[in-house]
Amino acid sequence: MSNGKLILLRHGQSKWNESNQFTGWVDVDLTEKGEAEAKRAGELLKEAELLPSIAYTSLLRRAIRTANIALDHADRLWIPVVRNWRLNERHYGKLQGLNKAEIRDEFGEEQFMTWRRSYDTPPPELADDAEYSQAHDARYADLPSVPKTECLKDVVMRFIPYYEDVIYPRVKNGETVIVAAHGNSLRALVKHLDNISDDEIAGLNIPTGIPLVYELDSEGTVVNPGGTYLDPAAAEAGAAAVAAQGGK
Amino acid sequence: MSNGKLILLRHGQSKWNESNQFTGWVDVDLTEKGEAEAKRAGELLKEAELLPSIAYTSLLRRAIRTANIALDHADRLWIPVVRNWRLNERHYGKLQGLNKAEIRDEFGEEQFMTWRRSYDTPPPELADDAEYSQAHDARYADLPSVPKTECLKDVVMRFIPYYEDVIYPRVKNGETVIVAAHGNSLRALVKHLDNISDDEIAGLNIPTGIPLVYELDSEGTVVNPGGTYLDPAAAEAGAAAVAAQGGK
Repeated sequence: MSNGKLILLRHGQSKWNESNQFTGWVDVDLTEKGEAEAKRAGELLKEAELLPSIAYTSLLRRAIRTANIALDHADRLWIPVVRNWRLNERHYGKLQGLNKAEIRDEFGEEQFMTWRRSYDTPPPELADDAEYSQAHDARYADLPSVPKTECLKDVVMRFIPYYEDVIYPRVKNGETVIVAAHGNSLRALVKHLDNISDDEIAGLNIPTGIPLVYELDSEGTVVNPGGTYLDPAAAEAGAAAVAAQGGK
Repeated sequence: MSNGKLILLRHGQSKWNESNQFTGWVDVDLTEKGEAEAKRAGELLKEAELLPSIAYTSLLRRAIRTANIALDHADRLWIPVVRNWRLNERHYGKLQGLNKAEIRDEFGEEQFMTWRRSYDTPPPELADDAEYSQAHDARYADLPSVPKTECLKDVVMRFIPYYEDVIYPRVKNGETVIVAAHGNSLRALVKHLDNISDDEIAGLNIPTGIPLVYELDSEGTVVNPGGTYLDPAAAEAGAAAVAAQGGK
């Protein structure tokens, strides 16, 4: 049996990536640049002959559309797709909709970086009646409760069990699987795959729209720790851009 | 319990609809007009507050993209989607890729209409090594055998059991379900829903991109025989255009 491949794909640029706003669970669409990134991701998959047999996405359109566009350009639009809220971006609480640079100016660098990168400190809760709350969104009607805020640890706790139960068995069995998701849900997964500590995960940034491929053997062991970006130069520049967010 | 709704959506105009070629299982993309039809379909669903909780599509990108675009514009891109080859267009055998007007000129009106509309006479078989064969297409690797040609009766026999087992129970239970498929797979379904005879189904044409809604009560009985188009005037014009195909 050949090794399984797990392809992580962070959605292309969204309208709020562009305008430097905290997005979280707000269902913001891709920009034209984001659509072009998704197309390029599909072309990279095709060139690398990495042809997934199943796709997993969050319930947010920026990830769903990234998967749709990438799979279309990889000639794999027909594969089964499974959507689950557990792949959603981290809920940014009261920060959702606010401008990153303004938050940094108002609360200072330390508080800003704590909210962005602390493993276990969530931002203040978002009220259920706030403009950017998802408390009454039909797509989350079956959840026991809709989050009001999340830290990365919360994302790990809600996403990794789903990964272990649903996604991982397919990869372990030799399938090629694509996961189209978000900066922080993919950071949670990379933390798990590479066994990164709670402190060190703060320094890890995942660029938009560039497939990151992990190879797992039949024991489930990662063969290439850290994963392999299909376009390493673009990935390096993209990760640096993510790290610099909140600047002016 | 409120009545279930079954929304039938034939894909928007494809490149071979435009060029008047028999398409069948060839994986032709939408035209810009087809994308606009899909967008309009989504807007019609939203205006009518017909919000599906699950989508079924064929394995062909013109139906998949129609569903994606329509659901995006209906704000339902996040619902579960299930793809199955049993919803595919009728396999047109040796006619796949050929121009409808040329076939009509070469073989005459009667043979042309027999191939297009006879219930149980399939066109000649397509060879597995022909340019437009799907015999070696990865998406059909799990089928017992890939069709070499099909008549409408073949489509009824492969699609209706799937409808009855998988789709119908959800509608009967009160869900709103969208089926994004093709002229002939949807004709097969309408034949079943409206109990249309083998002879009379020849006269039924389904326009592209206009949602056709059937309402089913909890007994599974169709409440509105013939279904209801969300844009009846456009549907009438569209059906007439389908009927006239093969003309010059």
